[in-house]
Amino acid sequence: MNNYKITIEYDGTNYVGWQRQQNGISIQQLLENAIYKLSSNNISIIGAGRTDAGVHAKGQVANFKIDNKLSTKEIKDGINHYLKPHPIAVLSAEEVGDNFNARFSAKLRSYEYIVINRRAPLTLDNNRAWCVYKKININKIIEQAPFFLGKHDLSSFRSINCQSKTSIKSINSIDINNNGEVINFSISAKSFLHSQVRIMVGTLIDIGLEKISKSISEILLLKQRGFAGETAPAKGLYLTNVEY
Amino acid sequence: MNNYKITIEYDGTNYVGWQRQQNGISIQQLLENAIYKLSSNNISIIGAGRTDAGVHAKGQVANFKIDNKLSTKEIKDGINHYLKPHPIAVLSAEEVGDNFNARFSAKLRSYEYIVINRRAPLTLDNNRAWCVYKKININKIIEQAPFFLGKHDLSSFRSINCQSKTSIKSINSIDINNNGEVINFSISAKSFLHSQVRIMVGTLIDIGLEKISKSISEILLLKQRGFAGETAPAKGLYLTNVEY
Repeated sequence: MNNYKITIEYDGTNYVGWQRQQNGISIQQLLENAIYKLSSNNISIIGAGRTDAGVHAKGQVANFKIDNKLSTKEIKDGINHYLKPHPIAVLSAEEVGDNFNARFSAKLRSYEYIVINRRAPLTLDNNRAWCVYKKININKIIEQAPFFLGKHDLSSFRSINCQSKTSIKSINSIDINNNGEVINFSISAKSFLHSQVRIMVGTLIDIGLEKISKSISEILLLKQRGFAGETAPAKGLYLTNVEY
Repeated sequence: MNNYKITIEYDGTNYVGWQRQQNGISIQQLLENAIYKLSSNNISIIGAGRTDAGVHAKGQVANFKIDNKLSTKEIKDGINHYLKPHPIAVLSAEEVGDNFNARFSAKLRSYEYIVINRRAPLTLDNNRAWCVYKKININKIIEQAPFFLGKHDLSSFRSINCQSKTSIKSINSIDINNNGEVINFSISAKSFLHSQVRIMVGTLIDIGLEKISKSISEILLLKQRGFAGETAPAKGLYLTNVEY
């Protein structure tokens, strides 16, 4: 068997997310179908991040094993051919060792979240960002964000549906970039809890809107979802990079 | 009558362009309908740039006269309300003097064109850029672009449907910005011929692909559309700014 690693970009708007589900079309399923058409191998593809419905990717990573020996160009162009007309594309492909597992070998996952702070509805960025209509105090966000850094019990920042055994996670970096009406959040960690990035961003925005007066440190210590802010919508979130 | 100037953003993908047409929905018509719902005035709106079908705007400017006296906030929020769910939004509004005409008072119009040079099909940037699959030699483009600067007979760079009386136009600036696979063209002039920006970009891309060996200076001197390159697709073009 040959093990291939692929880097994938997608517009998640019209899909139920990465993972196969009963109620709609998943990115995983479309990739598995394309790989079947290319190789006649009925495989399970393993993704680094199980992005939710509506979440996008600029650098999702996945791997799969097939018995065919194909060049990386054949893998990339072939999967892209069979993915049409879905807005999902393989950006690069490489052959990797048998032990490589896109999910368990990942050392660092990076997400980006885009907020646009303006009164006018979005047009070109519709389904690509979260439009927040009320004026955000960006200084409060920039002041509070660094308190997420390091190892914490993130019970306040996980979905009530999160099935992870532990709520202890380490956040390696969180950067806020504000350019005019656009606020970009970049967050990296080895792994994340369910909806963690969206609850972190939603809470920082609620702090910037002065709807929450507690600090990030206080909310972390309270260890209850109810003290954090709203879950930011899926459409602003991008899985941007996975390091191995 | 009160004269209002508005700055507009839109995703042109599903419209026949700025101008009213028989064969589909135009941006102009949707704005006029929204202004009618807001003010009960049946007006003609004047746009600075008559963008073609599929062309986008980040900073189209228009003006219209109504007999109501409304605040700029009422103009902006009101038109945006009645434009829903179309991806068209008024970014700002101001009251201007009776003589202001968005088309004839314009001193400088700026367009941006986005090319993405890669083999993988576009996903998130679908309908937002032109994907060129073959490798572009960016140095040839950077070398040739400055020859467009200044006053020229642009007969080689106008659509055969162009109805302008003169083909003499002055180009104030042309900037090329290359970041990874993305090439951004920024072009400014007081006014443009029909399809001029798209033919200029298409020709520079054909030079970068080595499909055209003539220089921009030679093509300008030949004054025939056939010597220039293809018309770059509408989906990569944005009207970004209009100065008065």
